Amino acid sequence: MGSRDDEPIGLALFGLGRAGFVHFKNVINNPRCRLKYIVDEDTTKVDALLSRYHLTDVKSLSPNSAATAYDDPCVSAVIVSSPTFTHEEIVQSALNHGQGVFCEKPVSETIQGTEACYQAAEKARRPLLCSFNRRFDPSVQGIRERVRSGEIGKVHVIKTCSRDHPLPEIQFLSTSGGMFRDCAVHDLDTVCWILGEYPNSVFVRATVHDEGIAGLNDVDTVAIVMTFPSGILALTDLSRHATYGYDQRVEVNGAEGMIMSENQVPHGIVGYTKQGIYSSVYKHSFPQRYAESYIGAIDHFFSVLQGTEPIIVKRDETIKVSILAAACEESYRTGLPVNVIYN
Amino acid sequence: MGSRDDEPIGLALFGLGRAGFVHFKNVINNPRCRLKYIVDEDTTKVDALLSRYHLTDVKSLSPNSAATAYDDPCVSAVIVSSPTFTHEEIVQSALNHGQGVFCEKPVSETIQGTEACYQAAEKARRPLLCSFNRRFDPSVQGIRERVRSGEIGKVHVIKTCSRDHPLPEIQFLSTSGGMFRDCAVHDLDTVCWILGEYPNSVFVRATVHDEGIAGLNDVDTVAIVMTFPSGILALTDLSRHATYGYDQRVEVNGAEGMIMSENQVPHGIVGYTKQGIYSSVYKHSFPQRYAESYIGAIDHFFSVLQGTEPIIVKRDETIKVSILAAACEESYRTGLPVNVIYN
Amino acid sequence: MGSRDDEPIGLALFGLGRAGFVHFKNVINNPRCRLKYIVDEDTTKVDALLSRYHLTDVKSLSPNSAATAYDDPCVSAVIVSSPTFTHEEIVQSALNHGQGVFCEKPVSETIQGTEACYQAAEKARRPLLCSFNRRFDPSVQGIRERVRSGEIGKVHVIKTCSRDHPLPEIQFLSTSGGMFRDCAVHDLDTVCWILGEYPNSVFVRATVHDEGIAGLNDVDTVAIVMTFPSGILALTDLSRHATYGYDQRVEVNGAEGMIMSENQVPHGIVGYTKQGIYSSVYKHSFPQRYAESYIGAIDHFFSVLQGTEPIIVKRDETIKVSILAAACEESYRTGLPVNVIYN
Amino acid sequence: MGSRDDEPIGLALFGLGRAGFVHFKNVINNPRCRLKYIVDEDTTKVDALLSRYHLTDVKSLSPNSAATAYDDPCVSAVIVSSPTFTHEEIVQSALNHGQGVFCEKPVSETIQGTEACYQAAEKARRPLLCSFNRRFDPSVQGIRERVRSGEIGKVHVIKTCSRDHPLPEIQFLSTSGGMFRDCAVHDLDTVCWILGEYPNSVFVRATVHDEGIAGLNDVDTVAIVMTFPSGILALTDLSRHATYGYDQRVEVNGAEGMIMSENQVPHGIVGYTKQGIYSSVYKHSFPQRYAESYIGAIDHFFSVLQGTEPIIVKRDETIKVSILAAACEESYRTGLPVNVIYN
Repeated sequence: MGSRDDEPIGLALFGLGRAGFVHFKNVINNPRCRLKYIVDEDTTKVDALLSRYHLTDVKSLSPNSAATAYDDPCVSAVIVSSPTFTHEEIVQSALNHGQGVFCEKPVSETIQGTEACYQAAEKARRPLLCSFNRRFDPSVQGIRERVRSGEIGKVHVIKTCSRDHPLPEIQFLSTSGGMFRDCAVHDLDTVCWILGEYPNSVFVRATVHDEGIAGLNDVDTVAIVMTFPSGILALTDLSRHATYGYDQRVEVNGAEGMIMSENQVPHGIVGYTKQGIYSSVYKHSFPQRYAESYIGAIDHFFSVLQGTEPIIVKRDETIKVSILAAACEESYRTGLPVNVIYN
Repeated sequence: MGSRDDEPIGLALFGLGRAGFVHFKNVINNPRCRLKYIVDEDTTKVDALLSRYHLTDVKSLSPNSAATAYDDPCVSAVIVSSPTFTHEEIVQSALNHGQGVFCEKPVSETIQGTEACYQAAEKARRPLLCSFNRRFDPSVQGIRERVRSGEIGKVHVIKTCSRDHPLPEIQFLSTSGGMFRDCAVHDLDTVCWILGEYPNSVFVRATVHDEGIAGLNDVDTVAIVMTFPSGILALTDLSRHATYGYDQRVEVNGAEGMIMSENQVPHGIVGYTKQGIYSSVYKHSFPQRYAESYIGAIDHFFSVLQGTEPIIVKRDETIKVSILAAACEESYRTGLPVNVIYN
Repeated sequence: MGSRDDEPIGLALFGLGRAGFVHFKNVINNPRCRLKYIVDEDTTKVDALLSRYHLTDVKSLSPNSAATAYDDPCVSAVIVSSPTFTHEEIVQSALNHGQGVFCEKPVSETIQGTEACYQAAEKARRPLLCSFNRRFDPSVQGIRERVRSGEIGKVHVIKTCSRDHPLPEIQFLSTSGGMFRDCAVHDLDTVCWILGEYPNSVFVRATVHDEGIAGLNDVDTVAIVMTFPSGILALTDLSRHATYGYDQRVEVNGAEGMIMSENQVPHGIVGYTKQGIYSSVYKHSFPQRYAESYIGAIDHFFSVLQGTEPIIVKRDETIKVSILAAACEESYRTGLPVNVIYN
Repeated sequence: MGSRDDEPIGLALFGLGRAGFVHFKNVINNPRCRLKYIVDEDTTKVDALLSRYHLTDVKSLSPNSAATAYDDPCVSAVIVSSPTFTHEEIVQSALNHGQGVFCEKPVSETIQGTEACYQAAEKARRPLLCSFNRRFDPSVQGIRERVRSGEIGKVHVIKTCSRDHPLPEIQFLSTSGGMFRDCAVHDLDTVCWILGEYPNSVFVRATVHDEGIAGLNDVDTVAIVMTFPSGILALTDLSRHATYGYDQRVEVNGAEGMIMSENQVPHGIVGYTKQGIYSSVYKHSFPQRYAESYIGAIDHFFSVLQGTEPIIVKRDETIKVSILAAACEESYRTGLPVNVIYN
């Protein structure tokens, strides 16, 4: 905290959807920045929001007026949480105007597009931060630090479990990129970031129980086994069907101990009856469970912009996770283990 | 949430101490209000804070310039978190200028002073809200609602445990009003608010282990037993000495079940070793544990100001808790149970 | 374990009620002893039990034939779990016949009777062990050891909570000796045994919710505050009305930490639904919760008989707890704190 | 319970190793049986044990005198917990003498041998019960019943985690049959028994961290993914390296909810310090964690012998799990998924 900067960072926010609204709330509460523009197709919705929050200094723009935001010298950075297919163009435009970029994953629909964006960032000498927000979750960070410090000795097994809640609307899912690109990438990045290495082999089984998701040719239940160069085994299971709140677990077992990140409840009330002892369901969904991580990710972005912190989500890591997600999908399609080659 | 109002409420904040800083952070993040003034002896500290947060529209005032805030027609409400001995004068002045008041407990150092403040509020037809913030804690609220709904049947016993962490500095404690007025009042109010009745008898034992606190002629460890007209028994234990985080528990047992509010941890990491299984200490202190309740209390204040909610902390309740705290202290001093008369 | 003895201890068991059946199961499974007689009014019930367990070597006796057990030279010890009013005579008879005695609390209905029994034991040079079985509970033992080792520093507060489940039958309660002598004595002994000192003052409030218990002029809900010479405060709450299983908690807070004994569930199944997360009710009642302590108490008795362990429940402790329970009852009756004098 | 039988079942126990000692303790405490013989190479150890427990009626036999036990008309059943390579011969001999058999898994070192044993049982019309003891664990049973009752709706995913503690001695491991036959079979049987179906495909990755285990050409860390005809996915991870007690978890997620079996601690003490909140490590090992299941398995065996319960562990199930364990090992050796064919 503190006066690390002379003046607030001018911001444009692209896209006011699920993640976009989380970013909106965080940036208007962060004294390190000033939100200048919100760019979204639905300017009516944006205007109503700005009015409700008395944000008279923030302008609403439709995407075809986005140039106003790019050209405004007060805007030194953009946050991209628009639909995936629009990412690459926005990222390129902002970087070309010398603006730093915070982009929801994936940066592009293709690995080539992602590579191109990073090249643009390098050329512009501006940061491009891909939002793997779990890296900023205190529990995930704590596990990584403690695993890296040797607290549990040589790692044998890492496990993650991510189950979505509530079941996302089919409209969101139809543009989400699919279970592997939308959901699995978070677990893949978390596992590799904690371990500091990338697997040389993946094996995936997946099924689909929801008819709507089946209609998208997507899956909703996934099992992943990965093997790492160091001999570590990883098991991940993913589902769109947690009925009991948002379920997010990480567990690492090693030669000297085990460390785990347990789920979180929204309050501490416990009831005791003849029938049993019961507590609340877990936190409702990602905005609640990862509230701190979203705040932390934006704050890290600002520190990178101001040169006080090195970027945590590196280009190579983003690319490798994309390759890994593609290998998972291939293993699912072929039914065979896939050797992963990163370049 | 939503557009319940046409324009934000203009605010002055008196006192930027422990609670004052919590209120500061909450009001600058609440779109329903605009902070106009901070009144505090230490204007240098205030100025630095305003600069850090880029709050160029907020003015810093020393207490002897407080008239500027009272006279400003844009200021329709004040938040009072200055030292206790200053409360009564600020409350009276603000009410006399037609400003609504949110005041840290106690409203006054004396019951007579508290009565006078409420009379002034009635005369000015402006709300005076005494900040029993635990009423806005989701766990305490949930317990009250569920007890009132009959979920556990006829209540037999209610227990609370409040242990402070970290040990407050002696300077704060010397002006805090003592264990009964500073700390016990919260538990007394919580118990009576959940039950909807006030005890007719209290018995208290207390001791002191900290030398500094002994030097203030105060205590740091308290046991309270209360009996209620309906036959309910209440047990409360208080301490300044929780070494393991901020400990706040409420438990109600009834004919049909029990309900409890468990403590909260800041993150979900659990470590497993040969020596045992260990999790984090509890949340650090009141700003962390009661973060939501402080936000909720301020939000409730705004709704009362705008006429959309009836006031939750009522005049009679505030007075009765003051009488009860005095009876607790008397029982401690005499070593005998005290019959409490509220008239 | 191990061959500490040449031959098994011959035993007579008096009384096959609630506690008696627990002792029956434990002694037939303990290779250190041989059960020879069961003395109980209901010889039909005893015979059926012996048949079911194929215990052809165990004889059933009615109380007026008890002399057979006292006179049998193979019987070196008796276990007394008959109704309280019969204890003193059995204890005296057994001791007079040179038999060691394990006796359910209280040893006698009066403090004088208890004194007389201990004098008889001293004269006979045989052990008289009063069954404060919680002293043999691993959790209570562990708390005592860790408190005594200084793990939590100087003790400030100790709390116990004992809630019975299920509500005992009125027939049992009518001969139980009442809430203070039947139930509170366990908590009183536990607190004093952990701390190693006895309170100089007690204050009690109590109420009754069950009509049947009210009809016995007994209470079912109790709050006790005790103050100890060292300055420690103790809070205990007791109830006959736990609906959610047998509730038994001990908690000690000190200058360096806190230590707690949590309740136990019979299995580890946890269910997760839209409505919440729920686990089993606590263990059903005292035979389940204190299974290990009953086994441990009997095993300790055998070791005392064989001279390999000093007796853990001492004469003075048993007497002091009786005095303390009487003081609790006096405080309840008078509504005033009572100074406790132990001799 | 109850008088289901006229006289106790005469028993011979073969093998007094890890599991054998657990069975020994359970049978001497079970009134439904009378232990007549213990057959073990180490008759000195057996004699000492019998002396310690005052079991003057039990005879010690070396394996080459086993005929005495087979020929004794008082022996109607045997318990086989000798080394695996001896199972088949004992099972066959006992069945040929008309004795019922309770046999530790595996019944034979080969699937053909297991088949032959079951044929002998059919011919002799005596029960052969393979000891998949987890089927008698209250938590596993409860999960199965609740999953089968439809409590969580259509099953999507089942997960088990079994981590051994402490690391078994290399001597035991060298004759254990290896990680898949000794350890994995329990998880495989548990998963299939809960679901009521057998997988059509398995994929396994495994590694070894312990040098001693590597020297046996065995593994100590395993990841298994199975797919079932109904579309359910199963993930299992196994390890010999739990440092924090014996770790045994089962979890089933379905369309309507999730159900989990949590690990168990030996006592309920929780310590609270500046460093954190810590409880005991989990129960020490299988005799503690599965104490109830071992008792339940033997009790079920007696009920099957007496014709009051149908056998729970069926021939086909035992064979299928053997086939499945072999398929797991094949997948590990080849690195490829294996389609499992059961006949």
